[in-house]
Amino acid sequence: MKKLINDVETMLSESLDGFAAAHADIVALGEAGQFVRRRTPKPGKVALISGGGSGHEPLHTGFVGHGMLDAACPGQIFTSPTPDQMLAAAQSVETGAGVLFIVKNYSGDMMNFQMAAEMVDCDNETVVVNDDVAVENSTYTTGRRGVAGTLIVEKILGAAAERGDPLRKLKQLGDAVNKATASMGVALTSCTVPAAGKPTFQIGGDEMEMGVGIHGEPGRRRIKLAGADDIAHELTGAILKDLSLKAGQQVLLLVNGFGGTPMLELYLMVNAVHKVLAGHQVKVARHLTGSYVTSLEMAGCSVTVSALDDAQLALWDAPVHTAALRWGM
Amino acid sequence: MKKLINDVETMLSESLDGFAAAHADIVALGEAGQFVRRRTPKPGKVALISGGGSGHEPLHTGFVGHGMLDAACPGQIFTSPTPDQMLAAAQSVETGAGVLFIVKNYSGDMMNFQMAAEMVDCDNETVVVNDDVAVENSTYTTGRRGVAGTLIVEKILGAAAERGDPLRKLKQLGDAVNKATASMGVALTSCTVPAAGKPTFQIGGDEMEMGVGIHGEPGRRRIKLAGADDIAHELTGAILKDLSLKAGQQVLLLVNGFGGTPMLELYLMVNAVHKVLAGHQVKVARHLTGSYVTSLEMAGCSVTVSALDDAQLALWDAPVHTAALRWGM
Repeated sequence: MKKLINDVETMLSESLDGFAAAHADIVALGEAGQFVRRRTPKPGKVALISGGGSGHEPLHTGFVGHGMLDAACPGQIFTSPTPDQMLAAAQSVETGAGVLFIVKNYSGDMMNFQMAAEMVDCDNETVVVNDDVAVENSTYTTGRRGVAGTLIVEKILGAAAERGDPLRKLKQLGDAVNKATASMGVALTSCTVPAAGKPTFQIGGDEMEMGVGIHGEPGRRRIKLAGADDIAHELTGAILKDLSLKAGQQVLLLVNGFGGTPMLELYLMVNAVHKVLAGHQVKVARHLTGSYVTSLEMAGCSVTVSALDDAQLALWDAPVHTAALRWGM
Repeated sequence: MKKLINDVETMLSESLDGFAAAHADIVALGEAGQFVRRRTPKPGKVALISGGGSGHEPLHTGFVGHGMLDAACPGQIFTSPTPDQMLAAAQSVETGAGVLFIVKNYSGDMMNFQMAAEMVDCDNETVVVNDDVAVENSTYTTGRRGVAGTLIVEKILGAAAERGDPLRKLKQLGDAVNKATASMGVALTSCTVPAAGKPTFQIGGDEMEMGVGIHGEPGRRRIKLAGADDIAHELTGAILKDLSLKAGQQVLLLVNGFGGTPMLELYLMVNAVHKVLAGHQVKVARHLTGSYVTSLEMAGCSVTVSALDDAQLALWDAPVHTAALRWGM
């Protein structure tokens, strides 16, 4: 296992310390690294809290700040944070307008966020993200997995919360954006969880895992390595089928790297996906390209398409200032 | 070789097409992909032009836009662009105030940019970046290599050009920032150049290349994989020795991933480097953390320290709007 670390046991806390130091203008670290919170809370707005296992950075800590999350709870690598972490985060950032939890659909996260929701003594709602169209049910989940579309839900809800939308309205908006968003990914290599010390799965030098999950969970099938156009066709085809897009529909396209994929390849995939979308008369109104929802150092990418209306696109465009996404300020 | 591509021959042009589509609000692609230019030129400002072999993305194309480069010329992977590309870029973006070329110190780039400088029929200067303290002379260069510090030179010159600084003043500023900037890197794995189809170098499962170049060139020595603190100590120690920093000096710290390194590890390295700098009473005034000057999918990182004065820090802070760096707008 080749990683830039000192000790598997302290890896997460050392990384959080570095993150908090590098972004001290935006975030503050909760006691014992239980959560990362927005440095300057905005009184009266609904507090948005997310979290999940670490190893997917910049998700979620990199999305804490103005116009996005108020707090993120990092679990150990690929392990849900505890309800105590979520409760501590809620107590730290809630200012009277309630808490909205944004949860990726994995059994551990769902259970722990539900416990946290029962423990907090304020008004709260939960938006569950399950954008991965690759498979129903999987290693860590019942139903579809929540993957890269999560950042789109977090960005749009963050902008709506920032302008003062109330809790129930945010819950409806989050559910609507989740429903309009679909993703699917492919892995060329495995990741290695530090505590395990060996690759999560074995894969041949000429194979890829089509429909892989962001923890290296199995996808639809293991096939021979294909060209980028073929990969784009399969990923985008599955997404288009799920969303039932009409010709002329405008979308946000996110081509996301899993951590070990060069930008050169991600932009090549953007080009390949464009060709597929153009063939269906789908118009790409916004782009995001980069490694935003990762699986440690796994090579591969996912494609996310989000069919947003004008009001939702305006929320996407609204100013944001976090470690990983920043524009308009 | 596992990459998201269709064909080695068309890889670069397909990727540039995807890049131009994803960032059509910021950039435009020159004819036959010879260069990427700022979409909206600013008449009367000095035109900043950089470029180099591809495979280091987002450097340089990702730094084209308001407050940074006016054009970037992408060569084939790890191969210098041609003088013709640079000339075409200059003719496209020069508006009467002259051209400043920003060149990383590699023999091919130096020769071709010098030829371009002789061919352009406008006032021009060249700033050479050679921030890598690992070795004197190397596989592709005489003298020190230009590595991640290049983006700091490009950002600060970009801000100065945007406010209207004249050519000679920019040349002086660029030389000064280069002199104040030092870098050193370490590789845990090799990259694979697509046209070669096999790893650039062989490295054992328990080894690392200390002082590696951004094309996988040899560094100072091949040693056993060490902990992050030991690595930070060696990289930062070499940089501090080169810059002869005094206690109390304020610096910009760039921890840069080479393409295959998770953010979790990069932030852990930030934390490790902080400890070394604190031991020398060096104050980190600004941070940048991420994979900005890469070597395809190579795992590893570099540390760059830039000893900037208040005026230079203000230029770093000035608004920028490019694909890879954006703030203040």
